[in-house]
Amino acid sequence: MKHVTSRDNALFKHLKALVGSTHQRRKAGQSVLDGVHLAEAYVAALGQPTSCVVGERHYDHPEVRPLLDLIEPERVVVLADTLFAQVSNVVNGIDLLLVIDTPAGHLPSTIDTDCIILDGVQDAGNVGSILRSAAAAGIPHAFLTTGCAFAWSVKTLRAGMGANFHLNIVEHCTLDMLAGRLAVPLLATSSHADAIVFETDLRQPVGWIVGNEGSGVSAEWMDRVTRKVGIPQPGGLESLNVAAATAVCLFEAVRQRR
Amino acid sequence: MKHVTSRDNALFKHLKALVGSTHQRRKAGQSVLDGVHLAEAYVAALGQPTSCVVGERHYDHPEVRPLLDLIEPERVVVLADTLFAQVSNVVNGIDLLLVIDTPAGHLPSTIDTDCIILDGVQDAGNVGSILRSAAAAGIPHAFLTTGCAFAWSVKTLRAGMGANFHLNIVEHCTLDMLAGRLAVPLLATSSHADAIVFETDLRQPVGWIVGNEGSGVSAEWMDRVTRKVGIPQPGGLESLNVAAATAVCLFEAVRQRR
Repeated sequence: MKHVTSRDNALFKHLKALVGSTHQRRKAGQSVLDGVHLAEAYVAALGQPTSCVVGERHYDHPEVRPLLDLIEPERVVVLADTLFAQVSNVVNGIDLLLVIDTPAGHLPSTIDTDCIILDGVQDAGNVGSILRSAAAAGIPHAFLTTGCAFAWSVKTLRAGMGANFHLNIVEHCTLDMLAGRLAVPLLATSSHADAIVFETDLRQPVGWIVGNEGSGVSAEWMDRVTRKVGIPQPGGLESLNVAAATAVCLFEAVRQRR
Repeated sequence: MKHVTSRDNALFKHLKALVGSTHQRRKAGQSVLDGVHLAEAYVAALGQPTSCVVGERHYDHPEVRPLLDLIEPERVVVLADTLFAQVSNVVNGIDLLLVIDTPAGHLPSTIDTDCIILDGVQDAGNVGSILRSAAAAGIPHAFLTTGCAFAWSVKTLRAGMGANFHLNIVEHCTLDMLAGRLAVPLLATSSHADAIVFETDLRQPVGWIVGNEGSGVSAEWMDRVTRKVGIPQPGGLESLNVAAATAVCLFEAVRQRR
């Protein structure tokens, strides 16, 4: 266990840089997880973090101790409260952060299992909610095109509630990178649909593509879609939130496969 | 049509007060809708607004003109661009706001149709997404307990994408106000469920209750629930986002009723 009380400490300076800048986190290949829930989800799924930083005042907190018991002591950093306040935006939470090496996604040579492609989904809350639904539905792969919100931002991680640690996430995907590898039918929701989702056979692996909040799936991807499916909306409103529509589709597949 | 160029204009001052303060909007019983999409949705559903405020630079915008054609000229206010910048947070959008009388919800003496109860849903994006799913699914009533995000805030309205104008929304509901009126079974999702949602008969009207993002449905409401239903999650993650789970349930009912 290290005890850090000086703002000149190298570890504190590194942490402050990571927390303050997406660019720094990308450059270092590291992410910062805020709060006990995310930390527990990470440790349960992927094991030891690079470091576990806890504020002095919460070192003996009943929610913190069981977590610290799981972490190798040399990875634990106790930070003076005044320093912790400089690296967290969460005011009423427990002062705990994990620094982790951002899991590197891999692009399979053949994608023959369920997957979801996020095509320009801009809102971090939507990206996190979609990743969470995908992980809950047992989808192994999430491919994000450039233009999506950063999958490892504080906001996306918070909305994902640990889903990031259960999925193979590949960012900055292009059509060229994915199209040749896709060995499953590609489905998109659309108001101009060939069939409704409840009458579409989803018992075999499928890829889902979901698009931007305003403009939907891009034209180049829509051309590659095997089947456009509709979600019946008896209330007559034009559309659903992208994360809500995704949940409906992914769990219709779960239903059909039971 | 009025043309307002002075910041001392009473209408401009009223607008600025409304935009700047939830308290002012509640007190005046008015809401402010930002952007063309929400404005179109309002006019299509509920008719004339109190006023339609357009920035000078966008008065002839091709997306604005068809909307202005639907609005009685005496309700249109053209605002100098420098003034408009003081009443909108949207930087890259079209400079258009509607001021409306916030639709007053009504509490039916007997609730014998589909409804949704939001019990302490705190995030405005979640409240908006749930209202949007409910409106799309054809649910007529949304009852919000104290502790929910304000249904008519800018953020909730934006996430709702017009759903607010298609639902009977009643805020600040208590258990005492609702419990005696509910003539439909009340369902909640739970990880300790009696049955899974896909095997629950949803063909008759039901009430759904959905709870706070962290703590779920409150104990006093959970005691009133007729049936707890589970959403199977083969991926093994603990839970879904509340708006995603709601969409899965509401559209499972849509599926069963086809």
